[in-house]
Amino acid sequence: MAHYSRIGVLVIDCQGENIADATEFWARALGVTGKVDADGKYAVLADCKGYPKVLLQSVSHAPRIHLDIETDNQQAEAARLQSIGAKLVERHPKGWLVMQAPSGHRFCLVNPQGDDFPGDARRWED
Amino acid sequence: MAHYSRIGVLVIDCQGENIADATEFWARALGVTGKVDADGKYAVLADCKGYPKVLLQSVSHAPRIHLDIETDNQQAEAARLQSIGAKLVERHPKGWLVMQAPSGHRFCLVNPQGDDFPGDARRWED
Repeated sequence: MAHYSRIGVLVIDCQGENIADATEFWARALGVTGKVDADGKYAVLADCKGYPKVLLQSVSHAPRIHLDIETDNQQAEAARLQSIGAKLVERHPKGWLVMQAPSGHRFCLVNPQGDDFPGDARRWED
Repeated sequence: MAHYSRIGVLVIDCQGENIADATEFWARALGVTGKVDADGKYAVLADCKGYPKVLLQSVSHAPRIHLDIETDNQQAEAARLQSIGAKLVERHPKGWLVMQAPSGHRFCLVNPQGDDFPGDARRWED
């Protein structure tokens, strides 16, 4: 058995409930299109050729950027990351895991986000 | 005249002077190789296929991730970004500009970092 993982999404965490202005700025800065979803919590920047996906997220904490690591086997990938020093912070009810690197950076472990997975993702023998 | 820009580097800012452990973790997490440079301030993660370059940097502030936007015309790109709401924070003596998005995220404007520029970078008419 094997599983795959890669940096799947670069998430720009924006403080506050209104991410429309931030979405407009980042879309124009990167030369792409941005669309806030129906409940206003997320915005996907489309056409990010050459990048991982870029997503804006409404958060209550200070602005930051975090990585989503995409994997087709959360359990195996979480175990692998824990074996090299990451900690599991919480299991989000919507299905992703919040983890923390030894360097103090939080990141999420998410299911594959698109049809192009695994693409260039790394293969890990289980 | 025209210039180009793109997300060039994803910089993992690590707090403290020793980034060897953080480099080892992130290299293993992403399945790539990492090498700390001679003065211990930076480490490049090699073989990040499908991603922008990933760099670790020793910093004195809390851990965070920031983006470096690569451009072949810093002056024109800074003016473009300022026209859509970014602020110039400082000009670093080593040649890059520190800027801040309206969303509060700091990022840097850097010269092209490799031979593959402009690649998929966006073209801006000046």
